[in-house]
Amino acid sequence: MTRITRKLLVVNPNTSQKMTNTIAQSVEAASSVFGDFIQCTTVCADKGVESVEGAFDEAISTYWTLEKVMPLLDQYDAILIACFSNHASVKALREATTKPVLHVMEAAILQACPLGATFSIVTDSDHWRPLLEEGVRDLGAHDKLASVRDAGMTALDTVSLAREEVVRRLVEASRVAVQEDKAEVILLGCAGMAGLKEIISSQLGVPVIDAVMAGVCVTAGLLASGGLTSKRAMYTQLEPRPNEVNVPEPGIMAAYGAAAQ
Amino acid sequence: MTRITRKLLVVNPNTSQKMTNTIAQSVEAASSVFGDFIQCTTVCADKGVESVEGAFDEAISTYWTLEKVMPLLDQYDAILIACFSNHASVKALREATTKPVLHVMEAAILQACPLGATFSIVTDSDHWRPLLEEGVRDLGAHDKLASVRDAGMTALDTVSLAREEVVRRLVEASRVAVQEDKAEVILLGCAGMAGLKEIISSQLGVPVIDAVMAGVCVTAGLLASGGLTSKRAMYTQLEPRPNEVNVPEPGIMAAYGAAAQ
Amino acid sequence: MTRITRKLLVVNPNTSQKMTNTIAQSVEAASSVFGDFIQCTTVCADKGVESVEGAFDEAISTYWTLEKVMPLLDQYDAILIACFSNHASVKALREATTKPVLHVMEAAILQACPLGATFSIVTDSDHWRPLLEEGVRDLGAHDKLASVRDAGMTALDTVSLAREEVVRRLVEASRVAVQEDKAEVILLGCAGMAGLKEIISSQLGVPVIDAVMAGVCVTAGLLASGGLTSKRAMYTQLEPRPNEVNVPEPGIMAAYGAAAQ
Amino acid sequence: MTRITRKLLVVNPNTSQKMTNTIAQSVEAASSVFGDFIQCTTVCADKGVESVEGAFDEAISTYWTLEKVMPLLDQYDAILIACFSNHASVKALREATTKPVLHVMEAAILQACPLGATFSIVTDSDHWRPLLEEGVRDLGAHDKLASVRDAGMTALDTVSLAREEVVRRLVEASRVAVQEDKAEVILLGCAGMAGLKEIISSQLGVPVIDAVMAGVCVTAGLLASGGLTSKRAMYTQLEPRPNEVNVPEPGIMAAYGAAAQ
Amino acid sequence: MTRITRKLLVVNPNTSQKMTNTIAQSVEAASSVFGDFIQCTTVCADKGVESVEGAFDEAISTYWTLEKVMPLLDQYDAILIACFSNHASVKALREATTKPVLHVMEAAILQACPLGATFSIVTDSDHWRPLLEEGVRDLGAHDKLASVRDAGMTALDTVSLAREEVVRRLVEASRVAVQEDKAEVILLGCAGMAGLKEIISSQLGVPVIDAVMAGVCVTAGLLASGGLTSKRAMYTQLEPRPNEVNVPEPGIMAAYGAAAQ
Amino acid sequence: MTRITRKLLVVNPNTSQKMTNTIAQSVEAASSVFGDFIQCTTVCADKGVESVEGAFDEAISTYWTLEKVMPLLDQYDAILIACFSNHASVKALREATTKPVLHVMEAAILQACPLGATFSIVTDSDHWRPLLEEGVRDLGAHDKLASVRDAGMTALDTVSLAREEVVRRLVEASRVAVQEDKAEVILLGCAGMAGLKEIISSQLGVPVIDAVMAGVCVTAGLLASGGLTSKRAMYTQLEPRPNEVNVPEPGIMAAYGAAAQ
Repeated sequence: MTRITRKLLVVNPNTSQKMTNTIAQSVEAASSVFGDFIQCTTVCADKGVESVEGAFDEAISTYWTLEKVMPLLDQYDAILIACFSNHASVKALREATTKPVLHVMEAAILQACPLGATFSIVTDSDHWRPLLEEGVRDLGAHDKLASVRDAGMTALDTVSLAREEVVRRLVEASRVAVQEDKAEVILLGCAGMAGLKEIISSQLGVPVIDAVMAGVCVTAGLLASGGLTSKRAMYTQLEPRPNEVNVPEPGIMAAYGAAAQ
Repeated sequence: MTRITRKLLVVNPNTSQKMTNTIAQSVEAASSVFGDFIQCTTVCADKGVESVEGAFDEAISTYWTLEKVMPLLDQYDAILIACFSNHASVKALREATTKPVLHVMEAAILQACPLGATFSIVTDSDHWRPLLEEGVRDLGAHDKLASVRDAGMTALDTVSLAREEVVRRLVEASRVAVQEDKAEVILLGCAGMAGLKEIISSQLGVPVIDAVMAGVCVTAGLLASGGLTSKRAMYTQLEPRPNEVNVPEPGIMAAYGAAAQ
Repeated sequence: MTRITRKLLVVNPNTSQKMTNTIAQSVEAASSVFGDFIQCTTVCADKGVESVEGAFDEAISTYWTLEKVMPLLDQYDAILIACFSNHASVKALREATTKPVLHVMEAAILQACPLGATFSIVTDSDHWRPLLEEGVRDLGAHDKLASVRDAGMTALDTVSLAREEVVRRLVEASRVAVQEDKAEVILLGCAGMAGLKEIISSQLGVPVIDAVMAGVCVTAGLLASGGLTSKRAMYTQLEPRPNEVNVPEPGIMAAYGAAAQ
Repeated sequence: MTRITRKLLVVNPNTSQKMTNTIAQSVEAASSVFGDFIQCTTVCADKGVESVEGAFDEAISTYWTLEKVMPLLDQYDAILIACFSNHASVKALREATTKPVLHVMEAAILQACPLGATFSIVTDSDHWRPLLEEGVRDLGAHDKLASVRDAGMTALDTVSLAREEVVRRLVEASRVAVQEDKAEVILLGCAGMAGLKEIISSQLGVPVIDAVMAGVCVTAGLLASGGLTSKRAMYTQLEPRPNEVNVPEPGIMAAYGAAAQ
Repeated sequence: MTRITRKLLVVNPNTSQKMTNTIAQSVEAASSVFGDFIQCTTVCADKGVESVEGAFDEAISTYWTLEKVMPLLDQYDAILIACFSNHASVKALREATTKPVLHVMEAAILQACPLGATFSIVTDSDHWRPLLEEGVRDLGAHDKLASVRDAGMTALDTVSLAREEVVRRLVEASRVAVQEDKAEVILLGCAGMAGLKEIISSQLGVPVIDAVMAGVCVTAGLLASGGLTSKRAMYTQLEPRPNEVNVPEPGIMAAYGAAAQ
Repeated sequence: MTRITRKLLVVNPNTSQKMTNTIAQSVEAASSVFGDFIQCTTVCADKGVESVEGAFDEAISTYWTLEKVMPLLDQYDAILIACFSNHASVKALREATTKPVLHVMEAAILQACPLGATFSIVTDSDHWRPLLEEGVRDLGAHDKLASVRDAGMTALDTVSLAREEVVRRLVEASRVAVQEDKAEVILLGCAGMAGLKEIISSQLGVPVIDAVMAGVCVTAGLLASGGLTSKRAMYTQLEPRPNEVNVPEPGIMAAYGAAAQ
């Protein structure tokens, strides 16, 4: 296999520039380790919601994520959705391409599995708990889930509160997960928590996973081994459908059709 | 409890008028039984996709379903999404209201449970099979699922092919489900199959469920017993967020905010 | 579908007239909403146990429920067993008829599913907890069960203690379910708790399900959509067997044979 | 531990003397191996059904099994219900005593577990299949169940057809289980199949379990290690309840009360 | 079946003579009940680890257990591995013989199943907890597991600390399992806890299982019913392979080959 | 994070030099993509079995894998066990170090998860099927397993039969998995199948995973993100234990003690 630089598009599904910057820093930290093997570009949705605080926002942001990614699909070798949720854009995009597509939630779980018997996710709010529990089940990893614990804040808080305060709340929630729920690994369950892995891990004494870093590293691994999305059943690409003309953002469906060529 | 007519909004998430008509007929057949207890209005999305053929279409149609429903929320007592998939608009809408919100897939499953030990879903294409298997798992009913079998067509075919041909394919797929997978009840797994319950059941000899009828009847049952969506954790309604200004269809977020009052 | 009044037989499997009255009131409240679509008759077993306090009582009451229902089968369109347990009479009766047969436990679960991510059952005593956990698993709904919590009383207490005391205990147990077990919906897990839904819900802030009302509404929904018990495998009706002559209550087997005609 | 002979009551829940004789032979074969450690008595129900062909018969036979056993409880050290189903009398009896109570289905499963990765049950008819699948799940052993296959006959056929014909059908169904379902151990799923283990095993080449023999051997093992039914929650014995006066067979409730002393 | 004495080899996989003695006493207590039906010999590994304190020790002790047992295989009718873990020697030995092979963990679980709705294992240390949880899942009994609780000691402590202190810690951990985790049966989760069943049970009020006694009794039951290890797939015995010459303990592979004759 | 070359030790647990060479080639192909980020060394066990054909061989090879790896632990940054089984050496080694330790089976599964809804494993023989099914369950990935299919050969055959014959058998077994079991991704389930990914994938039309390549890539990803084995409960390292003196290969326990410093 000849050495070629692979290009990874990282997409923040919300419109917050602050969160996009936080994500970009973790992306850079993770990808730099691989030298020139992988080259990352981090973007965010042009429209939609400023942060993804639940199922409603997820539905809105899915649409604008597709609108952002579809025209860029052929310029990248893989797509990483930087939202810690079972973000619906991933399944939609896998249908539209053979290139690897992941969200950082799945990547974080995949990296947690070999590191301990169980993991807990530390999320923003109690509202996210059942959504993430459902996501873990959908991803088929529920047997290893110790718990989902929340840090009593919003997703937006992770990048607007003082960093020490964010860390304090995350450490507190993680401690409960380790002591009461017997978690052996902690997943930072929001893209806005990117970059806090070291400081939290040092206070907890168990491995902590930065989902954005995990996303870059798992995707790099798939690119290195030539992994492709299966087109058997689940992610079969459909025929381009010309009658979808009344979509206000025709770029989405046109790009879907183009990808199908 | 005084007798008041309850208003149910039935929403076809795609833009096909033909499918909307098919749905409306089953809605009418089911609701007429209840006399003046329930009054139904069937609409479809204004924009988006002409039929929902997979995960990509589901993502697009979720957005336009929300765009359609949100401004109408306060005029109805319950919302029924007439797409046989684990359609993401349902979770989004449950977050936005305490009124009952269901999709016809869940309703069909809920009606199948007391009628036999297991059920099979007869879907359009093999592409839908893993999506529906995943949906059944997410809805917590996988222990009763015998199989998902497909009839080798598209969703659009269900309302464009000759009716006899559609029936022939559905009966054939259902027979395999009954004989090989030991299904005791058959669910017609596409809104476009509404109205075929009697003819298929008579050929099969096992109960067949018309998901749209099931949707009306289950929702009527919830309205009769005063069922409300829990606001504890999963469907907590968030605060209106003024900064979501850059959504091109401001009606969605404004309505979300209004619903939160 | 022409509008015909459907007749529902509600059966309290024990002999307590007090509990039968309590049940009948919830039955009336629920069915009146549907106008003349559904007409309910509430009866209780002639012999057996005064209340069903566990597996032994359930076994006894199953026999006397069959003895009561079998001769009445052809006079009703559906049967509802008003005991919050996975009462064995339901499977026996489903074998004997194509008409819908449910117990209120299954109905309550079916109504809880669309209203929240998880539900808890508030039962009478800790003795019932494992029985109901097993029942939920048998009904295939364990993924949505948050917990079974008990109110520290007997089934008979629910209709003999002061109503305020019963409410106080139920609210207390429900609070634990909501706060510690993260229940989003509460099921009142005894037919003797019928009629307490409003008062308990108002104190808890989460939806509460009156299983008897749920039973009427779910059965009404099945009747409206023409639901029939599948005769494939699980509920196949056997041939009448003349040699069952030594049953002291010959009515049971004779009726079984008659139903098979 | 001093050597004392333990007394085991084996109960055939139906009224067939022919089946009772078949059972008694397997009981004798199994217990004779233990010398004077265990002494078995095999009886059948006085009334009820001639054979247990499904859920309805099971409900009837449960009542008459209790009627038979309750007055005899204090004369035996353990009770074995010789019906291959998740017979409801077992849970009822466990509530009424601390002595070990099993049915032969559970015993057969417990003996199969250490002998192979998976087991299949060969039952009488397809009607029994879903009932036994449910029973296996209730007993918590579904992860090891390869399949339930039927031999196309009734329970009564097992003792009325020619022995060679019964064997031929069982071998045929077992072969399918071994070859298609990858069963590693076969369970003879009807008490009427007692005594056929050797002949079937020799034709199949995998271990075959005679459920009645398994029942005697597992119960003997529990008696040898001093096993007692837990009275914590599930099988707590309730207080004697004097008001259960209108049971036509007062012996049942009186015996329940006496056992509670 | 003629009455023949069966010979059971009980193997302690570690090298501790003290623990071997403790085990031998429980073996004797259990087997004496069966009269001359069963004759037991208790041995320990010649080399390896003094106690099995985790996965590393288990791996080492598996090798030396095989080294000990393989040359003795043809002298015994069954093998019991007296280590409360899902000890890998059992699967290896089942591959090498048709005689029943069990470890005491599986036997204890098999005896717990009919005695209560759920069981808890009281193990030595928190390090063992996830290992045993995994073992229970592998054995297919996780639905009945209430919890694994630890007594805050090492396996070696069970035979080196004062007996009262060991009992005190076990009772304390068991109480938590019964009260908080709703365990109905307690399993003593270390071979070094053999002989403590009576004293602990009397303080707890729920049945307690001595895994070594359970091992003898379950194996006796299998011997009595003629149970054999299936050679279908999982435990198929492979051909002797002459090239395994560089094993330093040639006795292992030679014996494997001999057993295959 | 500064760029440092990480050293990965790949261990073939059997003694076959031919298989070690095959593994080494896939290791080289995968690691070369990463440039100088990762440097791999491939070794095999010095003693034990020439190939791992089942549970017995796995037990033997676990011991000799530990004997090989323990003295080398401090010279490498991660350990990869190149045997497609749930090889027990991994849990033992995780207990002995904080460095990442994986076997290629887990790595292959982790890479398959994002590429399709389900995967099948193509293994050597039907003997391996239940072992791998159990392994997948233990790894918590059973919800995504479509099937385990075998190619009708031994592990040794994979490197001794003609390459075309091996490919032919693997393609045949994979086709059954794709067509009958609905597998969307195929895992080559033996280290001896390394290097065949491209040729088989081109004939099948679904993604194929070379477990050895997956092993290198997943481990590289863990090293890049700084993943460490949790020392909480499951993999806690025990105190060095001086009394393990009678192990003939003292290097193992000494190295365990040294690693604990």
